[in-house]
Amino acid sequence: MSTTEAKGARRGRPGHDREHVLRTAVALFNEQGYEATSVADLAQRLGVTKSALYHHIDSKEQILEGALDEALGGLEAALDAALERPTASERLTDVIRGAVQVLTAKQPQVTLLLRLRGNSPIETAALERRRAFDHRVTELVRQAQAEGLVRDDLDAGTATRLVFGMINSLVEWYRPGGRIDPDLLAEEVLAVALDGLQTR
Amino acid sequence: MSTTEAKGARRGRPGHDREHVLRTAVALFNEQGYEATSVADLAQRLGVTKSALYHHIDSKEQILEGALDEALGGLEAALDAALERPTASERLTDVIRGAVQVLTAKQPQVTLLLRLRGNSPIETAALERRRAFDHRVTELVRQAQAEGLVRDDLDAGTATRLVFGMINSLVEWYRPGGRIDPDLLAEEVLAVALDGLQTR
Repeated sequence: MSTTEAKGARRGRPGHDREHVLRTAVALFNEQGYEATSVADLAQRLGVTKSALYHHIDSKEQILEGALDEALGGLEAALDAALERPTASERLTDVIRGAVQVLTAKQPQVTLLLRLRGNSPIETAALERRRAFDHRVTELVRQAQAEGLVRDDLDAGTATRLVFGMINSLVEWYRPGGRIDPDLLAEEVLAVALDGLQTR
Repeated sequence: MSTTEAKGARRGRPGHDREHVLRTAVALFNEQGYEATSVADLAQRLGVTKSALYHHIDSKEQILEGALDEALGGLEAALDAALERPTASERLTDVIRGAVQVLTAKQPQVTLLLRLRGNSPIETAALERRRAFDHRVTELVRQAQAEGLVRDDLDAGTATRLVFGMINSLVEWYRPGGRIDPDLLAEEVLAVALDGLQTR
């Protein structure tokens, strides 16, 4: 999302626009924790009454589910697109690049996903979907090992977790609309993931 | 902590041992969130009354502060030890190894640290201390770039964040006492950080 879009939303009718409600809810969940946030807190943040808010949302569970689906759907789409490429090596580099793009474009939703504790059926389902994604990427790392791109002295599962640890850390320090260009960042992540820090 | 120690603690007098109280509190904070956890919740989990619990602790703030100090103190000690080494390159490899050891040895405390939102003075102070640690490591990466170990086409700050993203992800998937050897893991993290995934 560009800075212009964010400003446009702020200039709109606060609390009366569904997109603005959802964005504010996700920000609030990330700020003070999903469990600790009530619909009343959200209404207060938006400056509307609870009953006005219920015209836009069914429940906080529904907001959580929608945000998690955006994050997971983005990651799954990036993986599906990467799988179109002919070699495992290209598929792996594409999925790393694609995941960075999803994390920078949907930072609040991915932050929510990464902080889940699995305290409800919605959270458990999202964690299950995230695990399935991880397994598909681990399989890709295994194929890239067989192809010779990835060194085979590393466990494919550990390698996947370390690289995604690097990618996922973006939610902690990447600021949407800030001074870091997301495409350049994707190339830097790829460089560190494939070549490491060491001078060649 | 070894499996034997954990079992020993569980066999002890539950709720009557300060160490057990602290460990249970940190586990509960990580499970359901610090804000969402009350002293009453902790008493219930321990199977004691709130007033019995107050013989062991002053407040939940004090438990949080102690746990964060263990995590940060561990990381700072690892960095201080690394700084004894003669070259920046050795200092950098030692601090990566040392940080992995702290994360595997103090996994629950570091998990708590990494999930802080800065909603109280204790949290703000811990985040400030964490930032100071990050700055010192970034300075080390910069020195390792000047020495020629680390490639200089990467921003030192970004490189530090990516490598610590990898290290910090351990709190999500490393299981104390599980099948992964912490020393071997430290070498794997170092291998990926310095040499990347790619076959040489």
